[in-house]
Amino acid sequence: MSVRVHDGASRRGPDSLIVEEPMEIRLDDHLVTTTMRTPGHDFELAVGFCHSEGLLGGAAVSGVRYCGTGSAVTTHFNVVSVSTGGWAPEPTARIGTTASSCGLCGSETLDRLTDRLDQLRAVTVDWSVLDRVVGQVGEKQDLFATTGASHAAAAFRVADGEVVLVREDIGRHNAVDKVVGRMLLDGALPAMVAGADAMGLWVSGRASFEMVQKAWAGGFVALASVSAASALAVETAERAGIALAGFARDGKVTLYTDADEAERPRT
Amino acid sequence: MSVRVHDGASRRGPDSLIVEEPMEIRLDDHLVTTTMRTPGHDFELAVGFCHSEGLLGGAAVSGVRYCGTGSAVTTHFNVVSVSTGGWAPEPTARIGTTASSCGLCGSETLDRLTDRLDQLRAVTVDWSVLDRVVGQVGEKQDLFATTGASHAAAAFRVADGEVVLVREDIGRHNAVDKVVGRMLLDGALPAMVAGADAMGLWVSGRASFEMVQKAWAGGFVALASVSAASALAVETAERAGIALAGFARDGKVTLYTDADEAERPRT
Repeated sequence: MSVRVHDGASRRGPDSLIVEEPMEIRLDDHLVTTTMRTPGHDFELAVGFCHSEGLLGGAAVSGVRYCGTGSAVTTHFNVVSVSTGGWAPEPTARIGTTASSCGLCGSETLDRLTDRLDQLRAVTVDWSVLDRVVGQVGEKQDLFATTGASHAAAAFRVADGEVVLVREDIGRHNAVDKVVGRMLLDGALPAMVAGADAMGLWVSGRASFEMVQKAWAGGFVALASVSAASALAVETAERAGIALAGFARDGKVTLYTDADEAERPRT
Repeated sequence: MSVRVHDGASRRGPDSLIVEEPMEIRLDDHLVTTTMRTPGHDFELAVGFCHSEGLLGGAAVSGVRYCGTGSAVTTHFNVVSVSTGGWAPEPTARIGTTASSCGLCGSETLDRLTDRLDQLRAVTVDWSVLDRVVGQVGEKQDLFATTGASHAAAAFRVADGEVVLVREDIGRHNAVDKVVGRMLLDGALPAMVAGADAMGLWVSGRASFEMVQKAWAGGFVALASVSAASALAVETAERAGIALAGFARDGKVTLYTDADEAERPRT
C-alpha cells in the first residue's frame, strides 16, 4: 500500500511495484557479474550480457541453465550459467587486480572495442519510421503500464520500422541484453544480415557509451534513444558505422550521425 | 554538430554533449571498480563509492589522489586512489570467483546490509518541503541545463527543505556517490546527527535498491525520487527506517513508507 499526495489531498491505494532481484551470471562456471534485474527472460539476459561484453570470444552457446539440480527446492533462480563447453576464453578478473597501465580513457576504451568488433556497413536510415517503432513498442510495454518504472529495448527493421522484439527491465542495460540474448539464441545475430533486414535498436533511456557498445556487438546499424547521447556515445557510433538518434519522441528526433542522410525531411 | 528534425523540418546546430569517461577507483591500491562518469568531483565520487559499498569498513580516508607523479604529463585523471593507510579491509574479488552459495536473492542481499548498517532513527517527514527542494535543485542543475542529459542528487535538510549540496553526473549512482563522498570528506556523515539536522537525499531517477542502500550507508533518513520505487527498495527502506517517496514532481508525491505521517495533508 502507498499513499499518493496531490495538492493537499491524499489517497491510499494498492501498489504495483516493479520487482528487482539480484542475478548472478556465470560463464562456464566463472562468475562474471551480478546484476539487479527484473526477473523474466533470465537466460536471454545472461547470454546477451556475455555477448555484449565480448566474453564469448566467438564461442557458441551450448547451454543455459539455472544453478541447482532441477527440483523446485534445490534450484536457485538467481544464478544463471551460460555454457560454451569451455570454448569461451576464461573471464579476467576486473576487480581486485590493478592493471599495469594507469586506467583507460574514453579513446582507449573505444580503441579496444574497435579491435574486437568490425565496422558495420553503413545503411541509410529514414528516421521517419521511428513513429511506427514507438507506437508498436508502447503497445508491448506491459511492465511499464502496470508499474510506471521499467525501461524497454526493442529491435526494429530499419526499412519499415517493424518491431520484432521488445523486452523490459528495471535496468535499461538489462533490457538491451535481453533483446541481444534472445536474438543470439535465435541465430539472428549479427542483426545486419542484408540491406533489407538491417536492424535497429530502440532504447527508452539515454544513449550512453555502453548502449552503443551493445548495439555494435549485436550488429545493429541504427540506435534510437528517447533521451540524449553522450559525447563518447557519438564518437563510438561514428567509429562503428551506427546511425545514432536521440530525443526520439513526440515526433521529434535529434540526429548525431549520418547527418547528410538526415537532411531529408520526414514525410 | 547534430540535426534536429521536427515535423519534417530539420535544423543543424551545435551540440552540448554530456561528457562520459571511464574512471578507475582504487582503494589502498586495489582496483575496486571502473565506472563511466562525467568528469568532475572525481575524488568525491571515489570516496562516496567506497563508503556506499561498505568497502571502508569504518576506516578513515587519509588521502585521495590521481594516479601518477603529479606532472600534467604523467598524471592520469582517469584513475583515483583512495587511501586509508591499509586500514580498510582488502576488497574481495567479485568477478571470476564463484561463490560457494548459489547466489543471493533480494532478501539475503538485504540481510547483508542489515548486518553492516544500523537501523536509522525514524524521523517524521513533512513532504511538503519537497517543493522547496525541487526548486533549489533545479537552479543548480547546470549540466542538465546545457546538455539535457544528466542525473542529479541532492542532500537536503528534512526540517525545512534547504538544499545543502547538489551533484550531477551522467549516471545517477555516480551523482549520489559524489554527494556522499563530499559529505564524508567534510565530516558530515552520518547525515543524521540530530533531529534538527536530519538530512534527506533527493535523486532525479528511480529509487532502486542501490539508491536506498547508498542513502542508508550515508545515514539519510528520507529518500525522495522523481520516478518510481522498486519492491526491494521499499522493503529496504522499511528495514533501514528511511522514509521513501517516489514520483516526487509537479506537486505530487507517492509515499511508500511512513504512511501514517503521510496522511497529513500538504499545506
